Amino acid sequence: MSAQTTDYGPVDAAFIAALRALFGELAGERVVTSMAVREQHGRDESYHPGHAPDAVVYARSTEEVAAVVRLCAKARVPVVAYGAGSSLEGHVAAVHGGISINLSQMDAVIAVHQADMDVVVQAGVTREALNRELRHTGLFFAVDPGANATLGGMAATRASGTNAVRYGTMRENVLALVVVLASGEVVKTGTRARKSAAGYDLTRLFVGSEGTLGIITELTVRLHGVPGTIAAAVVPFAHVAGAVQAVIAVMQLGIAVSRIEFLDELQMRAINRYSNTAFACQPTLFLEFGGLEAAVAEQVATVRDICDEHGGADFQWAKDPASRERLWQARHKAAYAAMALRPGAKAWATDVCVPISRLAECIAGAQEDAARAPFPTMVVGHVGDGNFHLPMLVDGDNPSEVAAAKTLNEQVVRRALAADGTCSGEHGIGLGKMNFLLAEHGEPAIAAMRAIKRALDPAGIMNPGKMFA
Amino acid sequence: MSAQTTDYGPVDAAFIAALRALFGELAGERVVTSMAVREQHGRDESYHPGHAPDAVVYARSTEEVAAVVRLCAKARVPVVAYGAGSSLEGHVAAVHGGISINLSQMDAVIAVHQADMDVVVQAGVTREALNRELRHTGLFFAVDPGANATLGGMAATRASGTNAVRYGTMRENVLALVVVLASGEVVKTGTRARKSAAGYDLTRLFVGSEGTLGIITELTVRLHGVPGTIAAAVVPFAHVAGAVQAVIAVMQLGIAVSRIEFLDELQMRAINRYSNTAFACQPTLFLEFGGLEAAVAEQVATVRDICDEHGGADFQWAKDPASRERLWQARHKAAYAAMALRPGAKAWATDVCVPISRLAECIAGAQEDAARAPFPTMVVGHVGDGNFHLPMLVDGDNPSEVAAAKTLNEQVVRRALAADGTCSGEHGIGLGKMNFLLAEHGEPAIAAMRAIKRALDPAGIMNPGKMFA
Repeated sequence: MSAQTTDYGPVDAAFIAALRALFGELAGERVVTSMAVREQHGRDESYHPGHAPDAVVYARSTEEVAAVVRLCAKARVPVVAYGAGSSLEGHVAAVHGGISINLSQMDAVIAVHQADMDVVVQAGVTREALNRELRHTGLFFAVDPGANATLGGMAATRASGTNAVRYGTMRENVLALVVVLASGEVVKTGTRARKSAAGYDLTRLFVGSEGTLGIITELTVRLHGVPGTIAAAVVPFAHVAGAVQAVIAVMQLGIAVSRIEFLDELQMRAINRYSNTAFACQPTLFLEFGGLEAAVAEQVATVRDICDEHGGADFQWAKDPASRERLWQARHKAAYAAMALRPGAKAWATDVCVPISRLAECIAGAQEDAARAPFPTMVVGHVGDGNFHLPMLVDGDNPSEVAAAKTLNEQVVRRALAADGTCSGEHGIGLGKMNFLLAEHGEPAIAAMRAIKRALDPAGIMNPGKMFA
Repeated sequence: MSAQTTDYGPVDAAFIAALRALFGELAGERVVTSMAVREQHGRDESYHPGHAPDAVVYARSTEEVAAVVRLCAKARVPVVAYGAGSSLEGHVAAVHGGISINLSQMDAVIAVHQADMDVVVQAGVTREALNRELRHTGLFFAVDPGANATLGGMAATRASGTNAVRYGTMRENVLALVVVLASGEVVKTGTRARKSAAGYDLTRLFVGSEGTLGIITELTVRLHGVPGTIAAAVVPFAHVAGAVQAVIAVMQLGIAVSRIEFLDELQMRAINRYSNTAFACQPTLFLEFGGLEAAVAEQVATVRDICDEHGGADFQWAKDPASRERLWQARHKAAYAAMALRPGAKAWATDVCVPISRLAECIAGAQEDAARAPFPTMVVGHVGDGNFHLPMLVDGDNPSEVAAAKTLNEQVVRRALAADGTCSGEHGIGLGKMNFLLAEHGEPAIAAMRAIKRALDPAGIMNPGKMFA
């Protein structure tokens, strides 16, 4: 009764011809089988080995995606959606071959509803492109995973990032989706109403489903007002524990910080080298505040007191837009900065999220385990949500390092689960965390998920080999 | 292939005996078949006719609920969950008979995690009881539908209410659930982590599923800090349109009001009569602000300016806790106040939610249609979310009034759907809105919902006759 099987139909010359027939005279540019393009589409930004699809289709509309999926359904050929390729758990790898549908040309901003603070976009729009489009509206799209991902990919992996502590993740920011199901049917999952009690929450079901239940082709997402006053600051701490305790105190006071990011000593060193900055190489918080003027001043004063109490040095301000931009660029490039510390190494991000009261012990435990690893690691995290990463710089050609990385990753995850946390805060399951999914949810929940998968994708053609072992 | 069928097993003497056997010597008080108790359990606070279950079971643990469900599954007997009976679309009516499981004795607060700002409770805890329990923690549970509903019922109907504009609905406030599935298996849907990208979002699937996919027996919900400074105010307006435009302006500025409620002239008159208050009988906004002191002062000043611009009279303050309490008590009793205007009449609440830019036209349209109705109506709403009700005071014994109420309800819903809104902002589908569910979502989405229903409840025993026509 498994929905996952390897008994798929072949992508042979006849199938490619049928695909090409869908696109008529555009077939040459829209259906591509060159090895370079196929390999690029089977690989994301993670350490996971690539698996090239048999062909890549560049779709330009929901109808085209539906037509391709119908063809694949008839022939029982796997379908994998591809946006920007910035996923971190091998989500785009075509482990059973099949067709990769590239959605990056579906990049239209369909409707900006300024009064309602929402926007309707095609799935291939990237978050940077969307925010450029919105720059004169006084509104912005708040979910920011760092990478310039597509919104479709962000929804599919339930992405979040630095702003989630204030604005929520994709879970909270998607109002409605258009999804092509495994049958090729097109479903609209919601309306533009801010809330609804009408029926099963299909929107939230597809958000985070990693392409295994359908392909997201259009999204309606919430926007937020750009705060009138924005302030950012950097605070180095004497010890990790002090920084984390300060974060806990801030969260408990209900202070609506826009961002509160932790970076450890080595991560700060990496950033300084990579971004040519001169931050203190100490455990550090990067903070952002936004709102009406007096509110921001009050928040800053309160957070400053809290940091003082926990051994923070004085705030270093980034008040003007340019220095704020530099600050967050440096933060966003933390992963590349880390990789530059050990050229040739692969970065395993790791990704757990725990109740905030357990954060200090989970980070300390991770650092203890990491001290025994044969490669450099660091800690960086969206700590306001209890979410942190332990990037590991692993020589992928060295089997003992790879084995040690697997062990360390598992230690970090097991500790998070024991602390009533989750095995993934924002990167998803993909190829990398299928065993942990079971450990986290237990057999009955996984059976329920599998039953839903079978109900919506009985032939198992949607991104097979992911999510469930 | 329908999951809904009337081919259910009988609740006969043998079945009752088997039920009683589960409870041993407590069977007398835990399995009840008296007509009075059965009738009470088949009826909610709505206009929908009651349908008594064949027996009522008072459960005290998840294991007991699971045992009852397993028995029902084996005999193919319907199961309906019952909390406080405060639903508004007939959700508890046992339209195909079967067993009502009363969860009100499952009222334990299992664990308060103050540092993490969450709490684990049994499903029968009411929101007032929970907030009493939390009163010395500086935290509160924010979702407030007015009625003293159980948290299990609130999750099952995706409830919200006056605070949702700032704190979200049950969708945003439930972190994890324990659910008894139709098989009698017990699923835990999540952890205490604030966010997760691990697997399908079962939590959000069960929130709002109205007992049709499983029975919620335990919840982990978010708490929020009680703001240090709270201010509440009443602002009468010359016209409905001015009040609504003021709300739109406040929302667009991103001002985090805690509550922003609209009540029309007749609703204000009803409240004055019922609650012995002396508010102006004009279109009115009830407002609440909360936060740090300077932030609240700044918000108040900004909102005051906005109200002035849109024809609002000056703020009437309710600054001390007692007068704030009186104000919100009056608001919460609006439905009873309405009913008292026409003794003997039933109140049909109606319930739609639209994008805020369409709110003024939707309310004006509803009022126009309502002017032709042979019964009194009023408008009251959580307008910050675009959610409003048009309570209709209908003589249930007068067929022409009942027909007119149906027509008016349909007009309000169709207008909301045409405005890209939803047929239910917070009351759910139940018996009353099955046709509108289809109109809102379309055939493919309803087919997907039905497929999920069949996957998780193949025999169709969970609250049959609801949600899907």
